[in-house]
Amino acid sequence: MDLKSTFRIVPDFPKPGIQFVDITTLLLNPKAFQYAMDAMAEPYKGKSIDKVIAVESRGFIFGSPLALQLQAGLVLVRKPHKLPAETFSHTYALEYGQDAIEMHKDAVSPGETVVIVDDLLATGGTVEAAKKLLSNMTCQIEGISFIVELPILGGRKKLEPVPVHSLVTFDFD
Amino acid sequence: MDLKSTFRIVPDFPKPGIQFVDITTLLLNPKAFQYAMDAMAEPYKGKSIDKVIAVESRGFIFGSPLALQLQAGLVLVRKPHKLPAETFSHTYALEYGQDAIEMHKDAVSPGETVVIVDDLLATGGTVEAAKKLLSNMTCQIEGISFIVELPILGGRKKLEPVPVHSLVTFDFD
Repeated sequence: MDLKSTFRIVPDFPKPGIQFVDITTLLLNPKAFQYAMDAMAEPYKGKSIDKVIAVESRGFIFGSPLALQLQAGLVLVRKPHKLPAETFSHTYALEYGQDAIEMHKDAVSPGETVVIVDDLLATGGTVEAAKKLLSNMTCQIEGISFIVELPILGGRKKLEPVPVHSLVTFDFD
Repeated sequence: MDLKSTFRIVPDFPKPGIQFVDITTLLLNPKAFQYAMDAMAEPYKGKSIDKVIAVESRGFIFGSPLALQLQAGLVLVRKPHKLPAETFSHTYALEYGQDAIEMHKDAVSPGETVVIVDDLLATGGTVEAAKKLLSNMTCQIEGISFIVELPILGGRKKLEPVPVHSLVTFDFD
């Protein structure tokens, strides 16, 4: 299937000069969406994955069905003050300012094998922060999966040597 | 399955006096999560559902696998300035102040049958707003589905006569 043609490129969003890869047009197409989920699960088939770690909020869209497909638990990585129980928190730098993400302390047990999921790999800052959050837990990160990757932004280098998987690449930033 | 016991009740979150129903403990349990998704899909089996409308952001967690299960498209209802293409917007009142939600104008086609999904039915304000967003489109709302309902808050009355489904109820506000 030509997955790439299911995305809509929106120029100048959220600001002038940015070409935004809109995943919502993929989601409207049930066959393409199912195809993408099967492809996302492929690298983990036959492996025992305990938890899928999904990054708020578009990561929830893909992390949730992936967890069900892999019969793994789903763990939410959220913005501050959204998770009600005790959390680990990690603050990271943005182009201007900073941001933080959180994960429940009891969401991953020692020795578990996990996969991190988000919709799009750009600079990799948020998922690198999720990886650092997981360093509070003695778990093994089996892989990091995205639907879309923008290779020019070099995010993959931030995340390796963990195996990084993406389904579609676009050659712009 | 005793789905109710998979939730964690967190007292005094996000503010004193509120008992917060934490769905993240359900998500950690793959068997319970799959059971919940099957139960959520049950009322729509054998019906032709074109689109599942998922409300940001916990609605994405349940709306996404429901759309795949029903072989329907997934439509995102999001906070302002998140969706990149042309949107309908609806502003609604909160206890203090107001909020708005948006949906892409081309996300639902005339004559389609849709289902709205969110995690929890409390006062019903957000999903009522999603229903009003959909009134811009000539579509039929087949049902509105939640995992958890807090009946004391009376949200169901706001949404009827559309059929409202929930899997678990808690008798507090």
